[in-house]
Amino acid sequence: MDSPRHPLDPLTAREIQQAADVLQRHVPGSDIIFRVITLWEPPKAEMVVFLDMEHGGKETPKSPARVAKVQAHVNKTFSEFKVDLGQQAVVSHETLHGRHSHIDGEYMRKAELACMADARVKEQVASLDLPEGATVVVESWTYGPDGMNDITKRMTMCWFYMRVSDDPDANYYAYPLDLCVEMSEKLEVVNIFQLPSGENDRVETRDKPNEFDRRKIHEGSEYYPTLNTQQRTTTKPYHVSQPEGPSFAIDGNKISWEKWTLRVGFNYREGMTLHDIRFDGRSLFYRLSLAEMFVPYGDPRTPYPRKAAFDLGNDGAGLCANNLQLGCDCLGHIKYFDGWLASHAGTPLKLPNVVCCHEIDDGILWKHTNPRTGHAAMTRSRVLVLQTIITASNYEYIFLFYLGQDASIHYEVRATGILSTAPINLSTPTVPFGTVVAPGVMAPFHQHLFCLRIDPAIDGHTNSLVVEESHPLPLHPKEKNPHGVGYTTTQTYTPHETGLDLDHRVNRVFKMVNEHVRHPVTGTPVGFKLVPCYSQPLLAHPSSWHAKRSEFGAHAVWVTRYNHEEEDEEMFPAGRFTMQSEGGEGIASWIEHRRRRRRRRTEDGEGDDDEVEGGVVRDADIVVWHSFGSTHNPRAEDWPVMPVEKMVVGLKPVNFFERNPALDVAMATQERNLSVLVGGGGGAECCEEVVPGGIGAVRIF
Amino acid sequence: MDSPRHPLDPLTAREIQQAADVLQRHVPGSDIIFRVITLWEPPKAEMVVFLDMEHGGKETPKSPARVAKVQAHVNKTFSEFKVDLGQQAVVSHETLHGRHSHIDGEYMRKAELACMADARVKEQVASLDLPEGATVVVESWTYGPDGMNDITKRMTMCWFYMRVSDDPDANYYAYPLDLCVEMSEKLEVVNIFQLPSGENDRVETRDKPNEFDRRKIHEGSEYYPTLNTQQRTTTKPYHVSQPEGPSFAIDGNKISWEKWTLRVGFNYREGMTLHDIRFDGRSLFYRLSLAEMFVPYGDPRTPYPRKAAFDLGNDGAGLCANNLQLGCDCLGHIKYFDGWLASHAGTPLKLPNVVCCHEIDDGILWKHTNPRTGHAAMTRSRVLVLQTIITASNYEYIFLFYLGQDASIHYEVRATGILSTAPINLSTPTVPFGTVVAPGVMAPFHQHLFCLRIDPAIDGHTNSLVVEESHPLPLHPKEKNPHGVGYTTTQTYTPHETGLDLDHRVNRVFKMVNEHVRHPVTGTPVGFKLVPCYSQPLLAHPSSWHAKRSEFGAHAVWVTRYNHEEEDEEMFPAGRFTMQSEGGEGIASWIEHRRRRRRRRTEDGEGDDDEVEGGVVRDADIVVWHSFGSTHNPRAEDWPVMPVEKMVVGLKPVNFFERNPALDVAMATQERNLSVLVGGGGGAECCEEVVPGGIGAVRIF
Repeated sequence: MDSPRHPLDPLTAREIQQAADVLQRHVPGSDIIFRVITLWEPPKAEMVVFLDMEHGGKETPKSPARVAKVQAHVNKTFSEFKVDLGQQAVVSHETLHGRHSHIDGEYMRKAELACMADARVKEQVASLDLPEGATVVVESWTYGPDGMNDITKRMTMCWFYMRVSDDPDANYYAYPLDLCVEMSEKLEVVNIFQLPSGENDRVETRDKPNEFDRRKIHEGSEYYPTLNTQQRTTTKPYHVSQPEGPSFAIDGNKISWEKWTLRVGFNYREGMTLHDIRFDGRSLFYRLSLAEMFVPYGDPRTPYPRKAAFDLGNDGAGLCANNLQLGCDCLGHIKYFDGWLASHAGTPLKLPNVVCCHEIDDGILWKHTNPRTGHAAMTRSRVLVLQTIITASNYEYIFLFYLGQDASIHYEVRATGILSTAPINLSTPTVPFGTVVAPGVMAPFHQHLFCLRIDPAIDGHTNSLVVEESHPLPLHPKEKNPHGVGYTTTQTYTPHETGLDLDHRVNRVFKMVNEHVRHPVTGTPVGFKLVPCYSQPLLAHPSSWHAKRSEFGAHAVWVTRYNHEEEDEEMFPAGRFTMQSEGGEGIASWIEHRRRRRRRRTEDGEGDDDEVEGGVVRDADIVVWHSFGSTHNPRAEDWPVMPVEKMVVGLKPVNFFERNPALDVAMATQERNLSVLVGGGGGAECCEEVVPGGIGAVRIF
Repeated sequence: MDSPRHPLDPLTAREIQQAADVLQRHVPGSDIIFRVITLWEPPKAEMVVFLDMEHGGKETPKSPARVAKVQAHVNKTFSEFKVDLGQQAVVSHETLHGRHSHIDGEYMRKAELACMADARVKEQVASLDLPEGATVVVESWTYGPDGMNDITKRMTMCWFYMRVSDDPDANYYAYPLDLCVEMSEKLEVVNIFQLPSGENDRVETRDKPNEFDRRKIHEGSEYYPTLNTQQRTTTKPYHVSQPEGPSFAIDGNKISWEKWTLRVGFNYREGMTLHDIRFDGRSLFYRLSLAEMFVPYGDPRTPYPRKAAFDLGNDGAGLCANNLQLGCDCLGHIKYFDGWLASHAGTPLKLPNVVCCHEIDDGILWKHTNPRTGHAAMTRSRVLVLQTIITASNYEYIFLFYLGQDASIHYEVRATGILSTAPINLSTPTVPFGTVVAPGVMAPFHQHLFCLRIDPAIDGHTNSLVVEESHPLPLHPKEKNPHGVGYTTTQTYTPHETGLDLDHRVNRVFKMVNEHVRHPVTGTPVGFKLVPCYSQPLLAHPSSWHAKRSEFGAHAVWVTRYNHEEEDEEMFPAGRFTMQSEGGEGIASWIEHRRRRRRRRTEDGEGDDDEVEGGVVRDADIVVWHSFGSTHNPRAEDWPVMPVEKMVVGLKPVNFFERNPALDVAMATQERNLSVLVGGGGGAECCEEVVPGGIGAVRIF
């Protein structure tokens, strides 16, 4: 279908082309390089009205205007436009002075070629004295400001690797070379760095790279099947079949499955997004997405502090999305969703199969055996999986939403791919900030910090964040807790925007509740809780560029008031533009800005009655952000390609549904599930007395 | 097969019968009630020699003596015997004065009948004025000492419930009654409690129960399929098939799968155990088992502090093991293992299908796409699952070991079943220590505290526990960390036995290492790390009976020195006997005992040279214990049967293998995996330009 069916549907190919055409007509004769043509999601205030009418079913709601967000270099000026596709007109225009567009793959390739074509670089490469037949591979990275240089211009760091095999799929990260080149925006060589080769090596003392130490050439660092001959044959085939087809129904971008309905979105920056998520007709979340991620490296030696990747803000999770393959990335009965981007010329580009949708069996969902009758009741857990995978140079991230029949949502990140590597002397077997994973190959320590943006709509859009903790009751001999076993919970409503930390010692739980809707049995506000992923906050010093640029990494949970006035400014917790960002534009800054205003108003005696300006988050349209990740100190087992490291976050109802929302899942039966017995028991034995009944529990004696 | 194949195999039916016969001949004419006949696992010192020879393959090792552990009431005296099955003789005998055997289902039923037959109880039940046709159900619990009473005798608490339906599978926990009876060891009624009916109700002021409030009768609390008519029909069938059969091979109790070998054991107390766990021929763990669990309730009102269950020590995970059903508890190609227990008369009793073994697909194991060639390499993760399920009255626990192709082990607990409930006035909608889940039904807050016992054998039995933390490097302008981004790890070897806490803020990691075996590349001791489950320690006051009885709940990680002298005394972290235990016999006490001895020796100037007595755990035969669980403040969604709550613990190699141990897993292909495309794309669209290559990454522009 080439027409959008719903205001939240991503732009169609035709709409992308229309938006480009409109802009071209708007600035005739201009040189335009398109960078983004994507849906400008309708203002939330409008969408909420639309969704209420749509789900109320009373009349056909009028769709909000269909608008494209276009970012482009127009005559070399980076600008953003809103193009109203109904009116076929540009309705707003913002010049983005001092901002940089996200990574341009074509430009990065040009940077690599220009770097290699430079005479000084050639000379340096020659000094490396590489083995005959070796191929140099240059990998360009965006520049993380480190305070060493002017950071307002676009700079590119080119890191050098080598393959010793002719095969272009050989793992060049196994041979990091002692060379790094800084390229200007105009693709001129600005600096050539020799890299530190030992723990305390001073690179300033050298003016040409160390010769490549041929003793570093080794085996065992290949992962690609044609180069890695040790393929085990022991794993027998495993097939999933659904003779009656999948349990889900797809209508455009809307998925209906069991009691869930939701819409899948996709954009260049966040990749997969989920919208208007409901269970049994009740609203749960307006929008869920991974909003940012940051990968700072912990190697302090120059120039490594520049290695710090914003894989969403800079690279774009949508731009890096894999074309998922049936039977490889996805097993079973698979529905794929495609994504659409725009070329530099503004023509639509299809990214096939960027999201896969399928079911899995997840073991037992609930079970009870009545010991008095021996009768067991049990259900198996069917889970709906939505998966997308991105490749960011050396590294892969697998992002998964799991929807449960019990109204739980789990968000999982799997980190895999190849470690980013740096050269190290063979005489330096260990360094304090990395792991030597192969001869001459050091994988620096780093963190992966993700930020999941949760826009709750718990039975409506007026929600609060409650922090619950479990604490012992005071020890009162012969009074309320005579035996010292009692405990209770404290419920603290978060009054203003803030960042909060995890604390398992007091079982700290973060609940999004609607104070206007009381649970019919418990009498408490209906809610959903965040089941966090316990991980270390950002390690970099608060004064560092890393910390200033990735404000969300300082706390595990943030709550902000939805900013209806500046929706685009507060979608991304490290700021709207992360490319060579200077910091001070992230979630902590938004909060601090409003906190100061609140304090000023209070000091001025104006009271605290402007809830919007004051950042009031109780009984308000709020957004909850969960920062989590891993402190990844590489293991030898992560080389040459890393088995997935899983991180999981949960969202679970807590006194939202009247009872177990999976109570009506049908009983598991062998008639339906057709499983196969392997082997068999040990056969009849002497004195055997088979215990009857469903369980072999205590009562059998 | 009726002969044991291996010294670690559980007793066969014939051996159980032999052990009983030997004891009967040993004490002729005595009245014997058998309570336990199980394998006395060979002393670890002997087993290590055996296993080294077995795996060395040089000669057929001589098996250690085959010994049965027998616990029995002999002429009413509770005693433990070692029966050497080779010699057919009792070789040791210990009288267990003041100890109580684990729960006896037959006795508990007798207690319930005796309770109901008591005239005063009948009178009280009559006072309840129950609805016509209602059936009273009595549930007996072992007694958790609470300081109210003499605790050395065996006491039983009988809790009263009601069913309003004739169906014996009706959920009687939906109607907790205002009555509780304390029974003596001789099954006489000692005390009758009326239960508190409001938050601050004083039960002492009543001498008969409140009449049952008929307004409490409600619908919606049934879970059993014949009583719960809302069965959804939307979930379509899902089949798993393995046309070439499973990838594992079973030889008796030995499992070989991919590069793993291990042995499955089973006993009345721990249920499933794993032994001699190796990967690629290298030793990882001598033994893994859930060693204890404790479920203390947080309701402080009399008599609820007596509700505190040791589901292993008192109930026995083996005794409560479910008979797992094909296609219900287990999906796919399933191998079952049976368990064997003994009856009161000493005859063998078979518990069929107590452990199931099968494979699952767990998504992607590793992937990388080379952005320069567009070529992706990826493998799917096959996982071996070993599952057992126990029913402890109202509650179910599912225990799972997951073995990965990447040499990871994950241990998962899924809590399900029915909440334990207490009556509450309809006029008391909330209490501070529980959740009202249905009219008149209060589910008190409680904790589930598990203790996983990890007996490491990391390339041998001389191991150490290292605590690793990640910390920022000091901020040194222009020196070693000029930009404030550097970080490093600290490695602290634990010198003596101790309990340790989790701390995600510093990325605290617990590693079991072998200092005698260095990794060929990293040069560091080979190791495995514990990936802990973050959860709250025991909430009960340290002076409480709960705390004294469940010492393991005070810290998340414990390390002890393997006690070769008293192996049986230090297998269970709440003590060898938990039934009505008085505390002071658990893991903290063992450690404290040796700590005092060490201090005394130091003070006496004798030095610290006796490593065994001094509890030295560096470079020693150590045991690591992980206490974890959940603070379970019930949700309405946990009623009337609870969707599984998952808790996961990991064990992962860290610089143990030279490289990714899953590097040789075969590539995933559709040819082998035969997945099915659902629906299809949106068809050809205008302007479509399909991007070639394996990924749709940045470089497509």
